[in-house]
Amino acid sequence: MERRIGLLGGGQLGQMLCEAANPLGAKIWVLDAAGSPAKQINARTSHVDGSFTDPEKIRELARQVDLLTVEIEHVDTHVLEEIAERGVEVTSADGSKRVKTVEVQPSWKTIRTIQDKYLQKDHLTRSGVKTAESMAVEGSDLEAVGRELGYPFMLKSRKDAYDGRGNYPVKSPADISDALEALAGKSLYAEKWANFRLELAVMVVKTENDTSDCGKSTIAYSVVETVHEDSVCKLVYAPPRDVSILVQREAQDLARKAVGSFPGKGVFGVELFLLPDGELIVNEIAPRPHNSGHWTIEGCPTMSQFKSQLLAILGLMPSFPNSTIPAMFPATVMLNILGGKTQASHNKLMNMAIAIPAGALHMYGKDSKPGRKIGHITVVGSSLSEAEALMAPLIAVADDIRAERKGLPRTKSVLSSLAPAARPLVAVTMGSDSDLPVLKPGLALLTTLGIPYHVTITSAHRTPQRMTDFAASAASKGFKVIIAAAGGAAHLPGMIAASTPLPVIGVPVKGSTLDGMDSLLSIVQMPRGVPVATVAINNSINAALLAARILGAHDGAIQQRLVKYAATMEEEVVEKAARLEDVGSEKY
Amino acid sequence: MERRIGLLGGGQLGQMLCEAANPLGAKIWVLDAAGSPAKQINARTSHVDGSFTDPEKIRELARQVDLLTVEIEHVDTHVLEEIAERGVEVTSADGSKRVKTVEVQPSWKTIRTIQDKYLQKDHLTRSGVKTAESMAVEGSDLEAVGRELGYPFMLKSRKDAYDGRGNYPVKSPADISDALEALAGKSLYAEKWANFRLELAVMVVKTENDTSDCGKSTIAYSVVETVHEDSVCKLVYAPPRDVSILVQREAQDLARKAVGSFPGKGVFGVELFLLPDGELIVNEIAPRPHNSGHWTIEGCPTMSQFKSQLLAILGLMPSFPNSTIPAMFPATVMLNILGGKTQASHNKLMNMAIAIPAGALHMYGKDSKPGRKIGHITVVGSSLSEAEALMAPLIAVADDIRAERKGLPRTKSVLSSLAPAARPLVAVTMGSDSDLPVLKPGLALLTTLGIPYHVTITSAHRTPQRMTDFAASAASKGFKVIIAAAGGAAHLPGMIAASTPLPVIGVPVKGSTLDGMDSLLSIVQMPRGVPVATVAINNSINAALLAARILGAHDGAIQQRLVKYAATMEEEVVEKAARLEDVGSEKY
Repeated sequence: MERRIGLLGGGQLGQMLCEAANPLGAKIWVLDAAGSPAKQINARTSHVDGSFTDPEKIRELARQVDLLTVEIEHVDTHVLEEIAERGVEVTSADGSKRVKTVEVQPSWKTIRTIQDKYLQKDHLTRSGVKTAESMAVEGSDLEAVGRELGYPFMLKSRKDAYDGRGNYPVKSPADISDALEALAGKSLYAEKWANFRLELAVMVVKTENDTSDCGKSTIAYSVVETVHEDSVCKLVYAPPRDVSILVQREAQDLARKAVGSFPGKGVFGVELFLLPDGELIVNEIAPRPHNSGHWTIEGCPTMSQFKSQLLAILGLMPSFPNSTIPAMFPATVMLNILGGKTQASHNKLMNMAIAIPAGALHMYGKDSKPGRKIGHITVVGSSLSEAEALMAPLIAVADDIRAERKGLPRTKSVLSSLAPAARPLVAVTMGSDSDLPVLKPGLALLTTLGIPYHVTITSAHRTPQRMTDFAASAASKGFKVIIAAAGGAAHLPGMIAASTPLPVIGVPVKGSTLDGMDSLLSIVQMPRGVPVATVAINNSINAALLAARILGAHDGAIQQRLVKYAATMEEEVVEKAARLEDVGSEKY
Repeated sequence: MERRIGLLGGGQLGQMLCEAANPLGAKIWVLDAAGSPAKQINARTSHVDGSFTDPEKIRELARQVDLLTVEIEHVDTHVLEEIAERGVEVTSADGSKRVKTVEVQPSWKTIRTIQDKYLQKDHLTRSGVKTAESMAVEGSDLEAVGRELGYPFMLKSRKDAYDGRGNYPVKSPADISDALEALAGKSLYAEKWANFRLELAVMVVKTENDTSDCGKSTIAYSVVETVHEDSVCKLVYAPPRDVSILVQREAQDLARKAVGSFPGKGVFGVELFLLPDGELIVNEIAPRPHNSGHWTIEGCPTMSQFKSQLLAILGLMPSFPNSTIPAMFPATVMLNILGGKTQASHNKLMNMAIAIPAGALHMYGKDSKPGRKIGHITVVGSSLSEAEALMAPLIAVADDIRAERKGLPRTKSVLSSLAPAARPLVAVTMGSDSDLPVLKPGLALLTTLGIPYHVTITSAHRTPQRMTDFAASAASKGFKVIIAAAGGAAHLPGMIAASTPLPVIGVPVKGSTLDGMDSLLSIVQMPRGVPVATVAINNSINAALLAARILGAHDGAIQQRLVKYAATMEEEVVEKAARLEDVGSEKY
């Protein structure tokens, strides 16, 4: 941590980089305007006031540090090249001059390639990474481009474009002159239209300078789904809401391959499109921490994207099994806070974020301007549905802020008034509604013990697929225990146990013949490998108590309620004994 | 977040308070020496340079803010009283003077009571909170005190004592003169010796000013175990390593009662002793964030003790179910970094902390001095044994740093190469050693699944008391599940279930008659109120798997191993099917 780090740009990304650096004892010198967000929380160094595009200021910064990095790719890479390749001249106290070596990470070559979107896409294509087909259009006939790429296509500025600025969709030849006028003065390229199903993103850490083996040089965070509005990132879902694990792994591999093709070290944000046919292509890459990685601050609390950026450029990044940094919570959702019509427009949103125990508010210390990113909110949950339920009312308020800002009618959102229900911990199911009377005393006891549950019917023989789906998804839905009741050839508890890693409690229901022995043996005599915790025939009370004991093994409040319950049972028996002894067995 | 906060003291606690405040947009003005840790990461305000014990500096700070709080209790409470009760005089731009109201949180009364340890203990005793018996000794005969409290007793400085400074153990009347000399010039009190089994701590958030109902006014974090060395906190374990959930719950209740008795809002650190007989007493209380709560930065990443302090004093603390803030990871362990012999002594420890993906390093930006708290390291784990294993090599290095600092022989620590012995999670018992062969496959499977267990024999009919003791103490010993096997009139599983709130799994053992049906029905047909999770006759494999599912419901690593186990079973069957189809059923 002794190497001094210089940072070009002191906005929110730089600020969060300093937040990660402070507790590590890493020192960062920031080049940006005085009072910029990063400088607000870092008084450990003598920052440089000025523009991160000013070559002389960049050299001034370089003189103070050992290593330069960026929070933005729109920088002068020729100065970075000069510094990285030839060093920077420093004057010693005695007036003598010498040349000091300063490392630049990620490599100036990478920043130069990526900051020109056409060069970036060309590089990706030549590296064998699938991306949208692109054509340089300098001086070319856009009608010819339209014939080549088809309509609509995107006309884009090659440089200095972000958050949708510098993009123009050309829907037909009639749009061409408007597009050229809108993007006048900029160097342009054309991109084939990608009709994606949804947008994914992967943060990738590059830990080696070379580009020979992305398997060794890159580590991927979990895949997220990003939702954009007005061409600006609005929401990030980790994990994505409806993307198979297999596609998520493919996305990580593609992102690692893309990042592995660029020289230098650091963290990279990779935006991807998931096409309707399931194919993944890279949309674009940022050679720095990225909005789609803000969820990692809480979602990976010991290894955020900002800590990774620091450790990667310092050569201190630890290795991870399977070269992936797993999310440390089952679900994390992030919402950006954009400035509203007035300086106070977002106050309600801030207050709501503060009122969520599993929520974190991040304000960047920037003046609010309409549409400007001024903060973000993250919530973590033990399931995606829980995190979504926590975030829903905040999204409704963000929608109101946007409607007011844009002068749109404010849509009445039902979400804002609804509190998320207590998350059920126990799933209760039965083979038939005729089993319900047997289960009712147990359900009543779960309510008494304050344990939220969800009841449904899944028949092993009449709804086999429904039963399997129910069992296979129960753990990911946040259930901790399943109670299943069935009678006769009672296959349900065992079949459910076969499709879940959760503990399954079986309640044998007594039928009209055999006194329930058929149900009991069908449930209890499971083969090795698939256990069912069987309770007595028709005894749903004991099933509920067993579920409570299982939850109580890790939840003191529930265990305490069980101790009270046992004490009450004991008192009842003692009272009855006293009365029996008092009045005698004949009168009792 | 518009209220301006003034903070007395800018050490590491103030620094971490600013870390929590920055992203919330809360602004803190710090009174301490220039360049103090809190000021290093907070350049948003015009701090006051000076001593937090200087009344004029405190008034200067008060003029700039709306609310004063502390990171240390050794402050001048008379100035705080003056400011809280009568406000502070400010001069407007036009030269006119007015009195400005400034809130002080926690209340100056609370700080005044707590900063004098004798008054603190007296207050606790009068509030009905158990604490060590204390006597004011001003001018009294210490030999009489010794006769009253017994030997050894502690002679303590009433004020300005921390990290063991100002304490003197008086082992016999012969120590009295040395003790008085060591603590000369201080106002003293004597405290009865507490021969505790271990030390626990609970962070408590107080959200209301009044003291009428701790049930409404306080919220408790999870209980932790603290380990002290040289009278300084060394390690914090969340949860404690060997304390039942019920005792943890009691500790939270006692800590809440103690904190609820003090006026004002804020976060409080409550240190407790767990006595050998299981009784809990309060050791002492800090009216501020506390070393024993640092684990919450990663352990409760959306609600650290520092965020709670801010939200509580601002009146913005959300409510929590059961008035408890649950830990968000199954286990968190914190190790303090104390300065070593040289400035570089701790570098190895820092590097090791950085190399742990689930670890977080917090350096405070303080110069290293021998024995000074200069940072801490936190690791999170999916179980306490995992977190302990991650921390073990770091503890060994911390021990080396201490040995070098104290000139002690460097003990070859076995910890550096060895993970701590895994604490058994499953208790396995049987009615007779003749049941062991039936249990063996299940025990082998527990080993395969990496689940530590403890095996014993307890016969319901031959060792009834031993059986009851075993069952009644299982939860407090840290077991999460019990497996009990028995045959014939198999009373053991049910009798065990009658004396524990833990889930009990019953394995019916097949005897020489009735094919095991006698055992099965004796175990499964339990009356309402006392459930036994019964598995198939002789099927200890399923008992082990059920135990693993119960643990896995709250331990992702175990659940993952179960998913792999199921996949292996599936593969085996698919392979056998392929072979059967290949060679035909006759040759198979």
